[in-house]
Amino acid sequence: MVFPLSASFFMPRYALLIEYDGSRFCGFQRQLNQPSVQQFLEDMIEIFVKHPVVIHVSGRTDTGVHAFGQVVHFDSPEPIDLRKLRAYLNHFGSRQGVCILDIHVVPNDFHARFSSLERSYLYLILNRSSPSPLMEGRATYVRTLLDVDRMQQAASKLLGYHNFESFRSRHCQSKQVFRTLDECSVVRQGHLVTVHLRSRSFLHNQVRISVGTLIQIGMKRKDPTWIDDLLAIQDRTKAGPTAPAHGLYFKGVKYKQDIFGTDRANDLHPFFFEADFL
Amino acid sequence: MVFPLSASFFMPRYALLIEYDGSRFCGFQRQLNQPSVQQFLEDMIEIFVKHPVVIHVSGRTDTGVHAFGQVVHFDSPEPIDLRKLRAYLNHFGSRQGVCILDIHVVPNDFHARFSSLERSYLYLILNRSSPSPLMEGRATYVRTLLDVDRMQQAASKLLGYHNFESFRSRHCQSKQVFRTLDECSVVRQGHLVTVHLRSRSFLHNQVRISVGTLIQIGMKRKDPTWIDDLLAIQDRTKAGPTAPAHGLYFKGVKYKQDIFGTDRANDLHPFFFEADFL
Repeated sequence: MVFPLSASFFMPRYALLIEYDGSRFCGFQRQLNQPSVQQFLEDMIEIFVKHPVVIHVSGRTDTGVHAFGQVVHFDSPEPIDLRKLRAYLNHFGSRQGVCILDIHVVPNDFHARFSSLERSYLYLILNRSSPSPLMEGRATYVRTLLDVDRMQQAASKLLGYHNFESFRSRHCQSKQVFRTLDECSVVRQGHLVTVHLRSRSFLHNQVRISVGTLIQIGMKRKDPTWIDDLLAIQDRTKAGPTAPAHGLYFKGVKYKQDIFGTDRANDLHPFFFEADFL
Repeated sequence: MVFPLSASFFMPRYALLIEYDGSRFCGFQRQLNQPSVQQFLEDMIEIFVKHPVVIHVSGRTDTGVHAFGQVVHFDSPEPIDLRKLRAYLNHFGSRQGVCILDIHVVPNDFHARFSSLERSYLYLILNRSSPSPLMEGRATYVRTLLDVDRMQQAASKLLGYHNFESFRSRHCQSKQVFRTLDECSVVRQGHLVTVHLRSRSFLHNQVRISVGTLIQIGMKRKDPTWIDDLLAIQDRTKAGPTAPAHGLYFKGVKYKQDIFGTDRANDLHPFFFEADFL
């Protein structure tokens, strides 16, 4: 068997598990004259490895969206001291809003985006009579008491294979509007209401529009059966508003290869542990 | 019985339960040309009530120290619509780093500072192999794995009536160095280690020096019996370093009158609930 002698083919590939504070960035993707997570990582890694680097991400996040289980990869022909790279990135990154939780060499056929089997998100709502300066930019504040049972009833209707036309941004470029939602659960712990969503892939703004819609139902402005109507009517303008970016967290990615250890996503949230939380 | 006709005597007194993000302020107390919580509250309330106001606090906090169960009071001769005052303060305050969790009319003999029977603090340590941008400024990062059992063993030695000379700042002005520590517990939940302290009153920096000392023991640089030596030797220079301000939270105050409802302090932390946490 003869391998083509392309340099990229033989380059070792590195996968990184990262956390970032979305409020510091214009989003994951590199943009002109704005700080992005991609730019930060590429610039920092290029200084370390001394050659140009391209970062590929599992799921791009919009401006303001946080992540604590995001996965990226890059290639480098040079052998890298992974402990040093991690220490170097975290030394500069933690105050700039990004840090590396884990780093591994992965097979060449691994791709942060295309190898992923499932992505999960968490949406955090602070639901009490006063806002919280300590949670500012970390959770969406809703003053009206949310009826979590109603929200859960509605959330269950979103589960499974549906046309999610009503739940995607008008700017969404996906040709396929059918998705399978594998998890959509709503949990209250005191004044925190968390929505967990899991799917192979999501449409643009699907999580935020779903949560914005569930909040309307939790506030009793709409009935849970509204979800049935929205799934049938396939019209974005009829669903709830897009929930704010700062309540959204990219929670984790699942791959066939268990790169970072089983179910790490559930242990990574810096505020609390979902294992105890659920 | 004849009451003196002093205006202040008849003025209604208002007690506020407040939360603030210490990173936005030079501390609680008003200082020249620096933003303080006291200045923010006095300025905002003065605009609302249209007369000068003096804010008294239960426990002053240093630069960078957070609070989620702080109590303050002020007097006003005018009748105040408490719902409106609260909405007004929270509208402007939540983005500036302060908010009002509750507000009540209290008897004239109530004093936020002098009526308090007990104050409690919480110290949050992020203990894992990577720092966290999402917890930046909200917890102190310790990379070395902390042995919580050792820390708890040491913490128990601080309980009770002691001369805390080794555990107070050199700038502490208190003439009385004896204090009774009623709670000092160390809890781990995943990568978060929390230290809870409770006493009638604390010496200056007592909580931060105690935690800084416990961290040294948790890192196995010192034995738990070090606490016995420090209590006996009464020398600040021999104890651990003062733990950073940004991990410290003023948790709550206890009064004879239960103004804000029993044990509210345990429900107020915006990140998690201690009832479930402990």
